[in-house]
Amino acid sequence: MYDLLQGLRVVEGSAFVAAPTCGLYLAQMGAEVIRFDAIGGGPDFRRWPLADNGASLYWEGLNKGKKSVALDLASPAGREIAQRLATAPGKDAGLFVTNFPVDGFLSYERLKTLREDLICVRVMGWADGSQGMDYTINAALGLPQMTGPADDARPVNHVLAAWDLLTGAYCAFGLVSALLARTRDGRGREIRAPLSDIGAATMANLGFTAETGLQGRQRPRMGNDVFGAFGRDFVTRDGQTLMLLAITPKQWAKALEALDLTGGVAALEAELGVSFASDEGLRFTQRDRLYPLFEAAFARRTAAELAPAFDAAGVTWGAYQPLEAALDDPRLYKGNPVFQEIAHPSGLSYPAPGAMATIPQAPRGEVRPAPRLGEHTDEVLAQLLGMSAAEIGRLHDAGVVAGAEGR
Amino acid sequence: MYDLLQGLRVVEGSAFVAAPTCGLYLAQMGAEVIRFDAIGGGPDFRRWPLADNGASLYWEGLNKGKKSVALDLASPAGREIAQRLATAPGKDAGLFVTNFPVDGFLSYERLKTLREDLICVRVMGWADGSQGMDYTINAALGLPQMTGPADDARPVNHVLAAWDLLTGAYCAFGLVSALLARTRDGRGREIRAPLSDIGAATMANLGFTAETGLQGRQRPRMGNDVFGAFGRDFVTRDGQTLMLLAITPKQWAKALEALDLTGGVAALEAELGVSFASDEGLRFTQRDRLYPLFEAAFARRTAAELAPAFDAAGVTWGAYQPLEAALDDPRLYKGNPVFQEIAHPSGLSYPAPGAMATIPQAPRGEVRPAPRLGEHTDEVLAQLLGMSAAEIGRLHDAGVVAGAEGR
Repeated sequence: MYDLLQGLRVVEGSAFVAAPTCGLYLAQMGAEVIRFDAIGGGPDFRRWPLADNGASLYWEGLNKGKKSVALDLASPAGREIAQRLATAPGKDAGLFVTNFPVDGFLSYERLKTLREDLICVRVMGWADGSQGMDYTINAALGLPQMTGPADDARPVNHVLAAWDLLTGAYCAFGLVSALLARTRDGRGREIRAPLSDIGAATMANLGFTAETGLQGRQRPRMGNDVFGAFGRDFVTRDGQTLMLLAITPKQWAKALEALDLTGGVAALEAELGVSFASDEGLRFTQRDRLYPLFEAAFARRTAAELAPAFDAAGVTWGAYQPLEAALDDPRLYKGNPVFQEIAHPSGLSYPAPGAMATIPQAPRGEVRPAPRLGEHTDEVLAQLLGMSAAEIGRLHDAGVVAGAEGR
Repeated sequence: MYDLLQGLRVVEGSAFVAAPTCGLYLAQMGAEVIRFDAIGGGPDFRRWPLADNGASLYWEGLNKGKKSVALDLASPAGREIAQRLATAPGKDAGLFVTNFPVDGFLSYERLKTLREDLICVRVMGWADGSQGMDYTINAALGLPQMTGPADDARPVNHVLAAWDLLTGAYCAFGLVSALLARTRDGRGREIRAPLSDIGAATMANLGFTAETGLQGRQRPRMGNDVFGAFGRDFVTRDGQTLMLLAITPKQWAKALEALDLTGGVAALEAELGVSFASDEGLRFTQRDRLYPLFEAAFARRTAAELAPAFDAAGVTWGAYQPLEAALDDPRLYKGNPVFQEIAHPSGLSYPAPGAMATIPQAPRGEVRPAPRLGEHTDEVLAQLLGMSAAEIGRLHDAGVVAGAEGR
């Protein structure tokens, strides 16, 4: 944990990936993040993957370093407590992250009556408030039809919920930006972040929509060919698959050199009357001529021969490896200072990451595990809402709140 | 453009997707973002997709609303100007976003000698400083082997550069967070954001690594089946492909109702002695029994029949559509207030998005196009570095700087 956001208090009422990652990023940069959930857990509390004892590795991954309050969110009393938590007083508080419906009991208009300068960051599915999740919105953007081998027409969904993840990080950016603005002008704001707008805007930012508008149809699927440049997966003599990329002139020259292809490519250039060195687009349009040269060059050598040659030449390449191999890869996991082995609420101990960025000038601090559900109910009710022990006891008795493990 | 970051001045020395989107998000929230490039353009200035006149739709999508300065970055004089721009004085300035090498002429240590409280956000490939791009790092994380139909073993790369995009948004969050910290303690910082750490941490945040550690191997590929829940693509009687998701008990109940499957599923539950309603994991492990029921239900009706039934019941679903259809879809593009039709430096006019989030309390302001390369060279040299017209003229004559279109 870094301390950039020290002193901020954020309340999170959320589920799934986008809003929880927003809270996670804030917590790992030093904010106090208090998440409330339904007693027994919300819709994401038992999501797969699971530990052998049924605990969700997903939930405990996404909620590291947060505090947990358990409330009966179906009851008026529980809902009132959620509203009061989101809007509790404090200078760098009144910061609420949620994916609850835009017009429900946690609407901005409702919460604003409790705290005028509230900053509310709201993850949404479709911008009109209708049900949408990463996979359904991704299907509407054309990407599954652009993904996968060209010889197979079946749509291919992404496995990584990219829109959720981008939305979560963008919401964290939106929240701190709104806080900066509030520090200047004293005003609260709602930042609505629908996955549909984030998807639509991103497809435009990357040029996909302008291209489709010009061409009348979207980019065809082309397997692992990198669009508009030279890049693809190739198979070595010993059957390993390596990804090769050559976008800049330097990357191109180095790849040719390391693969002993300078002569072969020069001959092709002479035949075609072109120069590949300065035009990455040409390497793409002529890829059907270039690929056989590269396929042959990869097929001549083993991965063990190519790897040091590529590294020595500074080629941009990578081996496909399964995640179990990545866990032993010192570039990713093994000994990576971003990770610390800690005990999690599932009862398991395994390495977990802190902040995804590194600040060389600052100590990383400890990676903190996710809370047990309801672990901080009493503490938060006392500190944020000033409730007495008797009052909190009555709420427990009435089933409006619960402590760790439902007690 | 919103005004949350009004008064901030950010300098960007960057290429490709991650660092430019960081600058883009900052600009669209109101920061002044000044990007410098090599005269004639950096390695991303001609990236595909292209307009008919060769202008990059990619570059003009990623650099909307920024100012552009063109410098001879190979010369000591040009490099010195880049350093002075990144560290120019000003209260909410000294904010630098880059993907230049960690140890080159734009290293934090070097820049810090010019401005002690500099905030430098640096996108990197691998955390050790070696060459890595989205596609090579993605290959090392195991995702391409988890993606695509189960009956095809070929690795499938994502088409959307998800790691670049997540890194860009996380960097924007990191920059504003570091500014909040500097406002408090006066200290500068470098925020290093390697794609490799962002990828490794995200796979852990989502539970992929803990799962792989427990099982000894990564999740097998399973086509479009949503892991640990009920969700997949199904084909209607008229051959349309629809994505259906049922994660929460409510989503499940609504899907059964809309598909007239309540009875069929109850019979299967009786046979198996289970209840699917309360256990999404069970719907996943028993999906081979459930799928035939759903396949038959979809095959009985057309998409035109199913769509209103799904919407009326509140089912979480989506049709696969190509991007050209999305452009006519009012939920995404047509009439979406996030987009405005503007003229771009390519000479084309087409709709472009502003900030990806919406603040209902604030006017959206104008979506500003990307600059022409070097359009703001003279203005920025005069305003930030206090150079006289004569001095700027000499730099032009010496080829150290250039104005719009290389002049």
